[in-house]
Amino acid sequence: MLNNNYYCVIMAGGVGARFWPMSNSTTPKQFIDVLGDGQTLIQKTFNRFARVCPKENIYIVTNKAYHDQTREQLPEIADEQIILEPYRRNTAPCIAYANYKIKAKNPNAVIVVAPSDHYIQKEDVFVDVISKGLGVVSQNPCLLTIGIRPTFPNTGYGYIQYNEDEGFMGNPSIYSVKTFTEKPELEMAKSFLESGDFLWNAGIFMWSLDTIDKAFEEFLPDINDLFKQGEGLYNTPQEEEFIDRIYQVCRKISIDYGVMEKAANVKVYAADFGWSDLGTWGSLYDLRKKDDKLNTVVGNHVKMYDSEKCIVNMPRNKVVVIQGLEDYIVVENNDMLLICKKSEEQQIRQYVTDIQVDFGKEFV
Amino acid sequence: MLNNNYYCVIMAGGVGARFWPMSNSTTPKQFIDVLGDGQTLIQKTFNRFARVCPKENIYIVTNKAYHDQTREQLPEIADEQIILEPYRRNTAPCIAYANYKIKAKNPNAVIVVAPSDHYIQKEDVFVDVISKGLGVVSQNPCLLTIGIRPTFPNTGYGYIQYNEDEGFMGNPSIYSVKTFTEKPELEMAKSFLESGDFLWNAGIFMWSLDTIDKAFEEFLPDINDLFKQGEGLYNTPQEEEFIDRIYQVCRKISIDYGVMEKAANVKVYAADFGWSDLGTWGSLYDLRKKDDKLNTVVGNHVKMYDSEKCIVNMPRNKVVVIQGLEDYIVVENNDMLLICKKSEEQQIRQYVTDIQVDFGKEFV
Repeated sequence: MLNNNYYCVIMAGGVGARFWPMSNSTTPKQFIDVLGDGQTLIQKTFNRFARVCPKENIYIVTNKAYHDQTREQLPEIADEQIILEPYRRNTAPCIAYANYKIKAKNPNAVIVVAPSDHYIQKEDVFVDVISKGLGVVSQNPCLLTIGIRPTFPNTGYGYIQYNEDEGFMGNPSIYSVKTFTEKPELEMAKSFLESGDFLWNAGIFMWSLDTIDKAFEEFLPDINDLFKQGEGLYNTPQEEEFIDRIYQVCRKISIDYGVMEKAANVKVYAADFGWSDLGTWGSLYDLRKKDDKLNTVVGNHVKMYDSEKCIVNMPRNKVVVIQGLEDYIVVENNDMLLICKKSEEQQIRQYVTDIQVDFGKEFV
Repeated sequence: MLNNNYYCVIMAGGVGARFWPMSNSTTPKQFIDVLGDGQTLIQKTFNRFARVCPKENIYIVTNKAYHDQTREQLPEIADEQIILEPYRRNTAPCIAYANYKIKAKNPNAVIVVAPSDHYIQKEDVFVDVISKGLGVVSQNPCLLTIGIRPTFPNTGYGYIQYNEDEGFMGNPSIYSVKTFTEKPELEMAKSFLESGDFLWNAGIFMWSLDTIDKAFEEFLPDINDLFKQGEGLYNTPQEEEFIDRIYQVCRKISIDYGVMEKAANVKVYAADFGWSDLGTWGSLYDLRKKDDKLNTVVGNHVKMYDSEKCIVNMPRNKVVVIQGLEDYIVVENNDMLLICKKSEEQQIRQYVTDIQVDFGKEFV
């Protein structure tokens, strides 16, 4: 039923400093049930894509450090579907690596690349958009990205400006792209929203293997040359040693900056499936179920008194009494505890740094 | 050097619901370093009395459940100095039991009885008062209690009204007693303070074995009869079985209500050695060392930001970040966490009850 040429590459190498101590470099956000509904983000992401691609065509690219967690959380996939990076090199090398692995199996692959740790509210719409998008890129040599219709002037997202044209390949929601813009100031974000021709960049990409291959050759030839040297080694026992060697010399660069902002054949699929990058505690608070005092609590033995609008994440069996807090984050994980006003969440990275400086790296 | 007839009975059977989760029925307050200075309260109490009585004459009366903790915290004492109660029966039976144990060893004993979990600031003054008091009761058949000169209208303490007379047995600070009053309302407490003839009841008593024996015979003959049956069994292998039996039928009554409020030969030694019963988080906060933000923190890895006047007790190695709290109690122990405004500390008993009702007795 599902097209055997359809592949999915889930990027799962992120480290989660913003959500400390719920997430940390040992267990980043993608491996956590941040919404408190029983599934981790990578599990949700995998299950969504399993409705579009055959399960055996879904690859997870992650750091070597996360091999075991990936194995544990996705028992359905084969070990060879976990692509392990020895170093963090941003998204372009990660995608190049996956491309060469897939090319060794199926040169006719059509690929969707996506982050592992985002939120999608309307899964049916999502599946429809991805399926249609893969259909388009299997017939046309374009680089297709997903743009989310913005609902407020978020300054934490990247924006894509598109041409109000008549659609593309018979799909009225796919447009050509004018510009990519990184996180704007608030005033700029407001004017983006007013103009009506900007979309949020969701970091989800679709292309045929052939098209993305040519783009790497043209815009990132140094990176392409490195990975090309390994042809014949992918999916063999020699792969790991080869990858360890080239990753050491490979530069860090994102696919957005390295390819998408430079290529002429970029299209954007404007969609609306209730998306969030879950980048802040605030965004998490907005999405989680709340009780009648607007608290959202994970933990089986938490009692709240005289408290409102708090986001609480406690180990399942910890007995916790919270009295008299309004608009706070209260989170414990790995025997580390954070109590912090929601309005101060931008400081959390600094707290983590302070702890490392004062107490040692081993503590976070 | 120390008088071999001088004995001390430290009452250490209390359960600590008010300081949950720092203390609980598994580890009550007396076994905790509540001041965060390296010694538990029972250790401090023992060391104070070791300056007055020979160490081998210091007895700890506690519940069977606390035998091991007592052993561990007071390795200097012999096992026979730990008197174990099978049930909680308030202070009168506890004192009667200790009396009969001591009588079997030394009928000429002169005894000071004291709680195990109070704070004494001026230890030298305390030792002087206890030594002089024991001298008085070894020469006079009176029941001597310690009264603390009150410094504010505390509504949590009992009060002793005394006669402004010329002193007793050559000691100008020892007076005869008019009345005992339990915890007064604030207005009453204020008038007590204004009148100048009220003292706080510290729950520390001194008497000769002979005098307290006669008092039990006269005011609590049923209790005295129970313990008298065991003469010949104390300090033998038969003692435990006997005690288990009589404790089951023994009624609960305090020494204050059962003896002190009824006897005619009660005297009070007015003293001023910086005393607190450490009965509330507020009293603990007042006594602990504070940093420049007036926070008092136990825990080696606690970082405080934008926070003031908090009392924080964390496990030694737990990494904790607290931001934006003023006047809060933040305490973790045994994997249980409390965050509560200091002003609401009277509710803590209720929270503990709620937890037991909602989650089960095993959780606190």
